[in-house]
Amino acid sequence: MSKGTVVLAYSGGLDTSCILVWLKEEGYDVITFLANIGQEEDFDAAKKKAESLGAKKVFIEDLRAEFVEEFIWPSVQASAIYEDRYLLGTSVARPCIARRQIQIARQEGAQYVSHGATGKGNDQIRFELTCYALYPEVKIIAPWRIPEFYNRFVGRKDLMEYAKKHGIPVPVTPKAPWSMDANLMHISYESGILENPKSHAPADLYLMTKSPEDAPNSPDVLEIEFKKGVCLSVYISSSHVVGLFSPLVQLGGRHGVGRIDIVENRFIGMKSRGIYETPGGTILYHAHLDIETFTLDREVRRIKQGLGVKFAEMLYNGFWYSPECEFVRHCIDKSQESVDGKVQLSVFKGQVYILGRESPKSLYNEELVSMDVQGDYDPCDASGFIKINAVRPIGGRRVSGSARVLCSVHPNCKWTDSQQETNL
Amino acid sequence: MSKGTVVLAYSGGLDTSCILVWLKEEGYDVITFLANIGQEEDFDAAKKKAESLGAKKVFIEDLRAEFVEEFIWPSVQASAIYEDRYLLGTSVARPCIARRQIQIARQEGAQYVSHGATGKGNDQIRFELTCYALYPEVKIIAPWRIPEFYNRFVGRKDLMEYAKKHGIPVPVTPKAPWSMDANLMHISYESGILENPKSHAPADLYLMTKSPEDAPNSPDVLEIEFKKGVCLSVYISSSHVVGLFSPLVQLGGRHGVGRIDIVENRFIGMKSRGIYETPGGTILYHAHLDIETFTLDREVRRIKQGLGVKFAEMLYNGFWYSPECEFVRHCIDKSQESVDGKVQLSVFKGQVYILGRESPKSLYNEELVSMDVQGDYDPCDASGFIKINAVRPIGGRRVSGSARVLCSVHPNCKWTDSQQETNL
Amino acid sequence: MSKGTVVLAYSGGLDTSCILVWLKEEGYDVITFLANIGQEEDFDAAKKKAESLGAKKVFIEDLRAEFVEEFIWPSVQASAIYEDRYLLGTSVARPCIARRQIQIARQEGAQYVSHGATGKGNDQIRFELTCYALYPEVKIIAPWRIPEFYNRFVGRKDLMEYAKKHGIPVPVTPKAPWSMDANLMHISYESGILENPKSHAPADLYLMTKSPEDAPNSPDVLEIEFKKGVCLSVYISSSHVVGLFSPLVQLGGRHGVGRIDIVENRFIGMKSRGIYETPGGTILYHAHLDIETFTLDREVRRIKQGLGVKFAEMLYNGFWYSPECEFVRHCIDKSQESVDGKVQLSVFKGQVYILGRESPKSLYNEELVSMDVQGDYDPCDASGFIKINAVRPIGGRRVSGSARVLCSVHPNCKWTDSQQETNL
Amino acid sequence: MSKGTVVLAYSGGLDTSCILVWLKEEGYDVITFLANIGQEEDFDAAKKKAESLGAKKVFIEDLRAEFVEEFIWPSVQASAIYEDRYLLGTSVARPCIARRQIQIARQEGAQYVSHGATGKGNDQIRFELTCYALYPEVKIIAPWRIPEFYNRFVGRKDLMEYAKKHGIPVPVTPKAPWSMDANLMHISYESGILENPKSHAPADLYLMTKSPEDAPNSPDVLEIEFKKGVCLSVYISSSHVVGLFSPLVQLGGRHGVGRIDIVENRFIGMKSRGIYETPGGTILYHAHLDIETFTLDREVRRIKQGLGVKFAEMLYNGFWYSPECEFVRHCIDKSQESVDGKVQLSVFKGQVYILGRESPKSLYNEELVSMDVQGDYDPCDASGFIKINAVRPIGGRRVSGSARVLCSVHPNCKWTDSQQETNL
Repeated sequence: MSKGTVVLAYSGGLDTSCILVWLKEEGYDVITFLANIGQEEDFDAAKKKAESLGAKKVFIEDLRAEFVEEFIWPSVQASAIYEDRYLLGTSVARPCIARRQIQIARQEGAQYVSHGATGKGNDQIRFELTCYALYPEVKIIAPWRIPEFYNRFVGRKDLMEYAKKHGIPVPVTPKAPWSMDANLMHISYESGILENPKSHAPADLYLMTKSPEDAPNSPDVLEIEFKKGVCLSVYISSSHVVGLFSPLVQLGGRHGVGRIDIVENRFIGMKSRGIYETPGGTILYHAHLDIETFTLDREVRRIKQGLGVKFAEMLYNGFWYSPECEFVRHCIDKSQESVDGKVQLSVFKGQVYILGRESPKSLYNEELVSMDVQGDYDPCDASGFIKINAVRPIGGRRVSGSARVLCSVHPNCKWTDSQQETNL
Repeated sequence: MSKGTVVLAYSGGLDTSCILVWLKEEGYDVITFLANIGQEEDFDAAKKKAESLGAKKVFIEDLRAEFVEEFIWPSVQASAIYEDRYLLGTSVARPCIARRQIQIARQEGAQYVSHGATGKGNDQIRFELTCYALYPEVKIIAPWRIPEFYNRFVGRKDLMEYAKKHGIPVPVTPKAPWSMDANLMHISYESGILENPKSHAPADLYLMTKSPEDAPNSPDVLEIEFKKGVCLSVYISSSHVVGLFSPLVQLGGRHGVGRIDIVENRFIGMKSRGIYETPGGTILYHAHLDIETFTLDREVRRIKQGLGVKFAEMLYNGFWYSPECEFVRHCIDKSQESVDGKVQLSVFKGQVYILGRESPKSLYNEELVSMDVQGDYDPCDASGFIKINAVRPIGGRRVSGSARVLCSVHPNCKWTDSQQETNL
Repeated sequence: MSKGTVVLAYSGGLDTSCILVWLKEEGYDVITFLANIGQEEDFDAAKKKAESLGAKKVFIEDLRAEFVEEFIWPSVQASAIYEDRYLLGTSVARPCIARRQIQIARQEGAQYVSHGATGKGNDQIRFELTCYALYPEVKIIAPWRIPEFYNRFVGRKDLMEYAKKHGIPVPVTPKAPWSMDANLMHISYESGILENPKSHAPADLYLMTKSPEDAPNSPDVLEIEFKKGVCLSVYISSSHVVGLFSPLVQLGGRHGVGRIDIVENRFIGMKSRGIYETPGGTILYHAHLDIETFTLDREVRRIKQGLGVKFAEMLYNGFWYSPECEFVRHCIDKSQESVDGKVQLSVFKGQVYILGRESPKSLYNEELVSMDVQGDYDPCDASGFIKINAVRPIGGRRVSGSARVLCSVHPNCKWTDSQQETNL
Repeated sequence: MSKGTVVLAYSGGLDTSCILVWLKEEGYDVITFLANIGQEEDFDAAKKKAESLGAKKVFIEDLRAEFVEEFIWPSVQASAIYEDRYLLGTSVARPCIARRQIQIARQEGAQYVSHGATGKGNDQIRFELTCYALYPEVKIIAPWRIPEFYNRFVGRKDLMEYAKKHGIPVPVTPKAPWSMDANLMHISYESGILENPKSHAPADLYLMTKSPEDAPNSPDVLEIEFKKGVCLSVYISSSHVVGLFSPLVQLGGRHGVGRIDIVENRFIGMKSRGIYETPGGTILYHAHLDIETFTLDREVRRIKQGLGVKFAEMLYNGFWYSPECEFVRHCIDKSQESVDGKVQLSVFKGQVYILGRESPKSLYNEELVSMDVQGDYDPCDASGFIKINAVRPIGGRRVSGSARVLCSVHPNCKWTDSQQETNL
């Protein structure tokens, strides 16, 4: 008799294939679920493989549109960046995938979900917090945290043997000496030879971006139009292109944009080294930052910046589906109401250059700021502004009133001059 | 009879030369002060010019060492960046210059200081808050805020005429259609044709950095060693170089590093467009960020990041000499105690790439993070961690206890299984 | 010929009566405006006085309802408190009054507004920022900042003489040796003998609250019901009372609730000493804090708390009508969606005691928290939670995995035991 | 053969007595440790009881002085308060106790420590994070999280039976229907009948404070002197008293000061209801807040306030011994350098009233703030200050320059008057 039904997040690779078979061995009915979030993958082959390994049902779902609209756009609005550098390409995909997995589990009446994430990483948390939030009664089987499993499969060799024994097709090409996670937005590389934080990444590691050295020798100029902080249309060399995010990914990739090599702090408390390439996300990050500063009031921007930092932490830590993240997303979305306009930029040899911007809702006031036109601005006001701002830092020692001396047009202001200096 | 002595921040240019003469005309003795903070300048010519225009004394002071050590280093420690983009190259020079100006005023018994900053900008505030903080009784003469002055000199033509009339040498080359501010760390460009935020900056504007298109076709690799968050030594292509900041400026300049085109929010409330090139500062910003994340505890980093944002605002707004900025600098300095180590990086075509890092004080624990070695880490702990983290977001609806089911090695944990589902 | 029309915020007192006449003298038509925001005042007498002094029109407006609903309620939602102590009773009234003043100015075609606030205080800023925000072209006449005026009226004696000369009725009772500001929410006392921060306030200063020593010798018990963070109904001794804010003011006043004596930091940079009594606001502050913590998610509360601190600063500094304050009010309002429920409390001798609370939307889970029932909570999970939380602070030195030793039911967890201690 | 030595945090009560015997039963040598942190306790009886139950060694340690100096004082400096209400009396004791427990464990060569904290509370975390931080290799035995233990002792009845069977003296008085934690600073009450958040606490619950209704009918006046934010001396009715913290506790207790009834958010994610009485801590909190605002610069205070909020969270969550808490304590300590002075206050019927304050380091400037003396303050400056502050909120629509109209002493300022209104 079956112990119940498990929806397994299945990649088609060696690990999750072994998990599939192991779950069956343990007495579960297994439904596999593979999300298309833009990664390079032979989805048909994966489907056949899962079926051949005994999956009761196989779901392959194209989540690309919802990934962009419901997850990447809000992150762009938030200028979400973790520890000042990481654009969260993996983090943002997790709640999207797990949400669908939970929908399938509910629809298929499964009480269990399972995944192949390791016990030391962030992804286990991101997957599971989403699962619990959307299906609190669900039971999660995380084999890499179950002693029976991880003590049995200590190394890759053990998995290979198990695979051979159970008719699981074994990969013919040797595994890269690091692990990867890919989607529409980015590819991450970590573990293996990258665990030594001093050793440089091999040149052939990157799959999504060209090396800047091999990138075109002349820039591409593009224009991105935003509406409420979200990408509305994209022009490359003055031509409107079809699509929004994908053309930016391709263009960025061609120019080697968005490679970073960082050490980051995981939620579970350890530092890890990661290498990321985020071509389209990097372009959008810069373009959005520019149009936002152009259209947002300074103080709204400052508060929103603080909320964005918190949002990035929530996203990184796996709390997309949480009361605080929903609250912060709402607030950030509100802040973007006037973030409309166009940014012109060029990409060249790994770098993004902002060239100019325009907006129907800009708070930029060309006359007010002009050095050539006085406009409705009385420079005398700045004297008062500065002197009042100096009152506090000098603790009330004489400032105010002292600077009008020369000004013969303000005779009455001179009353302070004859006063004796009192060091208050 | 003299109205008193003024120490004038004198650049040798048309504006401050006219101010010098005008101050004399108004009845003041004028001492000029010109700080060498690394800008390109003919200091001898400026000295002679000031003398010929009737300055009572001429001070030309080399502040480069103290500018780097007392102002740039703390800003690097703080990762000081304004509105996510501007590295504050102008802001950080102002308190350095004004401090010396005030020292001269005190030493020469001058009750007045004067400068040529405009009435719409940030610099007037940065200068004057420093002056008031260090010499609260000082009187400041800011001609561009005095109606008598600014109504007399409405355009450049008026200044030219006045110069001719008073024997002030008039520049022979036409003025660039923008204004500039240069020092060791950066050059800023604003005003004039740049006031239109949509128009692109002309290619020949940049003086400190090569165009990335014309930069070398192969990267330079360098290593920067930090001690307490401050630059300790620099290696280029494995060779130790003389100097710390200057070699980075030159290398960055050669590779076109550190150009930005932004709209920013001034302290006085208007938005302005600025173009900046900060070759050395940009390299250091990236290198410091990397070594800091490598050596600082995650939560210390997070608190320090918040303090750094505040520090950048204070610096931008002119509050270097204020109780809060002194306090925050102290705290940030404390945070950097363990920020020691070396960062390897390459610069190429306008971009900085981190390649690797090492540190005697790193908190990076290669065994702990390894995917190949379990180390002192029990994956089971992560299950508890995740489930407790899920308690709050789902508001106490069933989570805890539900996920150990499969695990036959924890038989007693199964007590929750037979319970009826209660939606608490 | 008239220089134009001024709408003067008129209190009926000596100062603004002199200002009224002085403005006429200066050639303006004067319209007076007096807002009823709950202060004790003879509005009819004030009307007659203004008319007799030559006001072209006299507006007396009852703003009490909008003051409570549009200004006090949002402040309660925000738990707005300045520098941890001041409930902002004066600050919150200013934008309410100035908004109406501006409406009258627009409706009457007046280009000027005027007020009697001093040049050292916060109120001038609060009034004028509201005026500029709602009527950017308005011209503000602040006599206490105009040398012609303040040099003419140096002391109260000068005002008295001017009053006598111009037929302005002079107060017969001597002025209290401090100044006061009263409204529905509070009375503030400052200046005069209170300027010495060491001297105690006289016992007879307070007008809105009884001395706690003279307050009733037994508590009153009340219940306040909230809906979306706003007061919905009030019960005293189990009886529903008419009104929301006023009954709390009266009850609090009777019991001596809400007196504070503080030194605070003004926006213009100086410290000042203020004494406040806020009977109803104090009760509501405590009740709202209680229901909020009961119904809000912990992390939403934390973010909202930070927004509330910012809101209080904006309110204090006069930025109610600003982009950032509108943004923050929106966010706070959103946070209060689930802040529904009832709080029981007692008031006694100056103090408010929370007795209990209940809510249909509480996140309080009595079974989950119970020490007597295990509920859906596996204590084992806490072990993992703690150990993972310890990973970071100890920098990866051995923690995880070490604490399951005793537990014979987790035999497989013991794998770490035999390992040699490695001090990583 | 012994499994090893355990240092057990022993209270002398039923629970930890059973744990003592159970640990022996499980094969451990048990050393008991009882900290005197000011709670009411018969320490001799506890010693004898532990010995009679077979403890190998019994440690009873008086930690009162270090508790006050190393833990309470820094919390007072920080104005540490959790979720706006809880003064953290239990939280702050935990690291003090656990630190000594760990010292004993190291000194006695014990590899284990144990405690009787439950699996749902905060204290388990506070104890254990301290233990791991100070002794990373330690193994912790938390019986209430071990299935063998908690499944055996489901209710109090099971413990009683076990006690009888093993010769453990059984309490003769019935247990209060709630649990308590007491120390010098406070007593907390929770669980049992208090778990219903609506039910009111019984009047006889409080042990440390008199009911305000029964408190003296006249106030006591006291003066507290601070040095660097820490209590230096205490005067009651103008008489210097011996001691610092204890006299405040007694005085506060006599007047019924410091009772609160709250719902709070535990670190593990659930809400719980707690009742606390903190008589001395409440007095100190108010007095410190007052002297701090009096002596600290406004902006330093603001930054320090934010750090204090973070400190309170760390303290509540158990991270006293963590890099971030050490960092924040250092910063807060730095902020208190000038927090010297005396606060006069009265306590009466449960409430603390600040009466006045004085300080040699105050930034309060009586002349600057005075309404009667102009001092070194030019009211004209405030006009400029306000107008520049209005530039941003109204987005550059006409403000600046418009308000000098009336002022005949500034004729040149009138240049804006003749301009056409341009709605920029």
